[in-house]
Amino acid sequence: MKYFAPPVEKLIEQFAKLPGVGHKTAQRLAFHVMSMPEDEVKDFADALLAAKSNVQMCKICQNLTQDEVCKICADESRDRHTICVVSDPKDLIAIEKTKEYNGLYHVLHGSISPLNGIGPDALKIKELLLRIADEDITEIIMATNPDTEGETTAVYLARLLRPFNIKITRLAYGIPVGGHLEFADQVTLGRAIEGRRVL
Amino acid sequence: MKYFAPPVEKLIEQFAKLPGVGHKTAQRLAFHVMSMPEDEVKDFADALLAAKSNVQMCKICQNLTQDEVCKICADESRDRHTICVVSDPKDLIAIEKTKEYNGLYHVLHGSISPLNGIGPDALKIKELLLRIADEDITEIIMATNPDTEGETTAVYLARLLRPFNIKITRLAYGIPVGGHLEFADQVTLGRAIEGRRVL
Repeated sequence: MKYFAPPVEKLIEQFAKLPGVGHKTAQRLAFHVMSMPEDEVKDFADALLAAKSNVQMCKICQNLTQDEVCKICADESRDRHTICVVSDPKDLIAIEKTKEYNGLYHVLHGSISPLNGIGPDALKIKELLLRIADEDITEIIMATNPDTEGETTAVYLARLLRPFNIKITRLAYGIPVGGHLEFADQVTLGRAIEGRRVL
Repeated sequence: MKYFAPPVEKLIEQFAKLPGVGHKTAQRLAFHVMSMPEDEVKDFADALLAAKSNVQMCKICQNLTQDEVCKICADESRDRHTICVVSDPKDLIAIEKTKEYNGLYHVLHGSISPLNGIGPDALKIKELLLRIADEDITEIIMATNPDTEGETTAVYLARLLRPFNIKITRLAYGIPVGGHLEFADQVTLGRAIEGRRVL
C-alpha cells in the first residue's frame, strides 16, 4: 500500500533512483522539496532539464560543454602539443584545479572494464586517434585512475599509440603530500621508492 | 572559477541545496542526471513540479493530500472519536504502517522549539482546537517525538486541551522490542520500569 499522496510517492521514487540515495533519504529529500517555495522548485526542475539538453560533448576533446568546442580547446594560450587523457570530466576538473597543467585534454568517458562489459569501443578512443593524426601532438599524459581499470586503459592506449612515435607518460605514483609514511600502503610506498628522484 | 559548463554548475548548486547533500555528492548526482535518458530527466522534473503544485494540506487533519480532504479523514470505516496528534506526515505514515491504529490524525507540521524560534503559533494547533469544538472526540493521543521538542509540544497541548474534558494520552515509553536491556539507555530503562505492566 502507498501511504503518501501519489505525486509525493512519485517524487520519492525519482529521488530513490539516484545513486547512493536510499528510500529513507529519498523520502527526506521529497519532503524538503515540498517545503521549498514554488519558484525554487521550478528553478530545480529547469536546472535538470537544462543540464540534460544544453550540455554536449566538445567535438574535439569530448569534455562536457555548452558550445560546440569547449573553453579549453578554444583557448589559444594553451600548449596545443600535449594531450592529457582522463576517464571522466570530473578528473579533468581535478587536474585544472592544480593549475600545474596548461595543455589540452581528452575525455574517454569511462575506463576499460571487462568485468562490467566495458570494452575499448565504449570509450572515446577513436576520437583520440583522429586528433593525433590531425594535430601536432608531442606528448600524451595518461591520467586515468590509479586502479585496475585505469591502469588497463592506460596500458591499452599506450600500446595502441606506439606506432605514432609520440612520447607517452603516466602520472607519477608515490606517497601523497601531507601523508604519513607509516600509513602509506605497501604498493604505494613501493612505487614511491621505485620512482625516487635526486634531490 | 567555475570549471563545468554553466548548466552543469547550476544543477550541482541545486542538488547541493538539498539537506545532507554536500558539494561532492551534488556533483555526482548532477553527472548521473546527465547520463540519464532525456525522457527520464523529464519525468524527474515533472515529478518535482507535480509534488509541489498538486499536493496540499487536508482541510481537516492537515495531512498532505491531492484532494481537499485526505483518504483517512474521508474513510467512514475509521473510528471518528479518536485523534492521534503527530508532528509530521512521516510520523503519520509510521503509525499507519503498524496497523494498530484505526482512528483519525492531526498533523501539527512541526514541534514547539523556542531555540529555533518555533512557537505554538507556527503549528496547526488552531485547526486542532476547531476540530475538537466541532467533532465528537473522546480521546486524543499525543504521538509527538520522544525528544525535548516533542515532549514540550505534548505537554503544552495537554494543558491547552484540559478544559475540553477529553481523555488525553501519550505513547508509552519503554525498551524497544527486539532490543537488549544492556544497551538500553538509563532514561529509557527507567521509564520502562516506571511504566511496567501486570503480566
